[in-house]
Amino acid sequence: LKTYLKQRQALVNGTLGKLLPSRRDFPASIHDAMRYSVLGEGKRIRPILALAASDAVRGKRARVLPAACALELIHAYSLVHDDLPAMDDDDFRRGKPSCHKKFGEALGVLTGDALLTFSFGLLAGVGSRVNGDAGVRLEAIREVAEAIGTFGMIGGQVADVGEGRRRPTRKQMERINNWKTGALIAASVRVGALLGSASASRKPAPGALRGLARYGEKVGLVFQLVDDLQDGDGAVRLEGAQAVRRRAQQLTRSAIRELAPLGKAGEPLAGLAEFILNRKV
Amino acid sequence: LKTYLKQRQALVNGTLGKLLPSRRDFPASIHDAMRYSVLGEGKRIRPILALAASDAVRGKRARVLPAACALELIHAYSLVHDDLPAMDDDDFRRGKPSCHKKFGEALGVLTGDALLTFSFGLLAGVGSRVNGDAGVRLEAIREVAEAIGTFGMIGGQVADVGEGRRRPTRKQMERINNWKTGALIAASVRVGALLGSASASRKPAPGALRGLARYGEKVGLVFQLVDDLQDGDGAVRLEGAQAVRRRAQQLTRSAIRELAPLGKAGEPLAGLAEFILNRKV
Repeated sequence: LKTYLKQRQALVNGTLGKLLPSRRDFPASIHDAMRYSVLGEGKRIRPILALAASDAVRGKRARVLPAACALELIHAYSLVHDDLPAMDDDDFRRGKPSCHKKFGEALGVLTGDALLTFSFGLLAGVGSRVNGDAGVRLEAIREVAEAIGTFGMIGGQVADVGEGRRRPTRKQMERINNWKTGALIAASVRVGALLGSASASRKPAPGALRGLARYGEKVGLVFQLVDDLQDGDGAVRLEGAQAVRRRAQQLTRSAIRELAPLGKAGEPLAGLAEFILNRKV
Repeated sequence: LKTYLKQRQALVNGTLGKLLPSRRDFPASIHDAMRYSVLGEGKRIRPILALAASDAVRGKRARVLPAACALELIHAYSLVHDDLPAMDDDDFRRGKPSCHKKFGEALGVLTGDALLTFSFGLLAGVGSRVNGDAGVRLEAIREVAEAIGTFGMIGGQVADVGEGRRRPTRKQMERINNWKTGALIAASVRVGALLGSASASRKPAPGALRGLARYGEKVGLVFQLVDDLQDGDGAVRLEGAQAVRRRAQQLTRSAIRELAPLGKAGEPLAGLAEFILNRKV
């Protein structure tokens, strides 16, 4: 798995570097800030999940790679805006100054905006030679827009900074947690599965797409539970660390069972689920 | 024209009210902030241009209306982020407290993000019963993403806050001006023309789409020149008010000439071009 991850990270990093505008393009400062905020460190879990989901249904890699990179850019946008003084006010990110610390606050706002905008352009096929699958691409855009909107990632943020301060019930906590990071993780798997099966030479096995969708939802929730465990926050405050750890383990096993219709082609996704459970944030 | 504008504004406002999530939906604060930042005052020039361009090629109104509203939401997102303390630091917008003044700075950032995200969802057809025209919808999304990215609206902002402070040449000024507001205005006309001609029962006249695209570019530039005239800024500093006013008038006449292939169906767009030239900001 370690080699698999390294190879995929290199593929994603190389593609991101090619897709993003050059630092020489006017206006240079924003392109510099975009590249600074995306390239370098990062596990690239979202694009790797999208690629793995596409592989699991024998999709063509070239058809999913730009969309997979768009998912990483969306993750980067959310981090850049999260770090702003008005939000979490973080001076450092991945061991270097955060975007607004390095480029100023105005550019912090605009860089996040630019990454988000660029991502939707990529998903719609800006700069890609491939056309076709228009219906499936639109469906992928709708998936992503819903996953990162106010009933998804942004909703999770809002609940975190404001309305979440009132002590939430376990059910509300689950929803907020699912929204915060789970929704984009789940969308990454679905986008990979959608674009992959549209470009595959044969139809996916019966139940494969539904299984992948359920797998995505489960690993998305595990991802957030592991975050909570490391921070001692969120679900941990309500249930205690032991219960949360047990739930994350059960969900991971259940996610892996959803891969059954894929047979051997689902193995990398099973490995990724274990990786998400055991990762250090 | 006054009646025409009033009717269209009412149509757009009514549709925006229905499309945006309700204030009762959790998390309430962001939905409240989104509605606050969009509904109420506003000329709705972008959606009205999109509707008029669709009408000019006999498009079906229901097919273009959600996309037209998305253009207004994008405009609203840009205003919400522009008003932030890190950007223009404006406490008031359209006679009431700006979004971050009313809801706090964190929600100011998130509301802009949410409006942008919601717009791309609308363009991709979230919540709309109409499916089909997938290729044209994707093209519209690409148009918009490019118009509001770093080689468009965001690029214009960056040049304004940073790199634009060095005294630009007339050619650079033109580009920055075209980017700042011109690109989204031009995209509004193109999106209306694209979606309209895809839903029309007969093909548009030869040269109609190209004429509309050129019309959009020209009125977009006029829009920004009129802004500059009111602020005594931008192009006015380089050329003087009289030269800028003359250029805006020439461009408007030239934009109207581009409508020739449309015949009588182009008349509302001609009226809108005059309105954009003569409007008070």
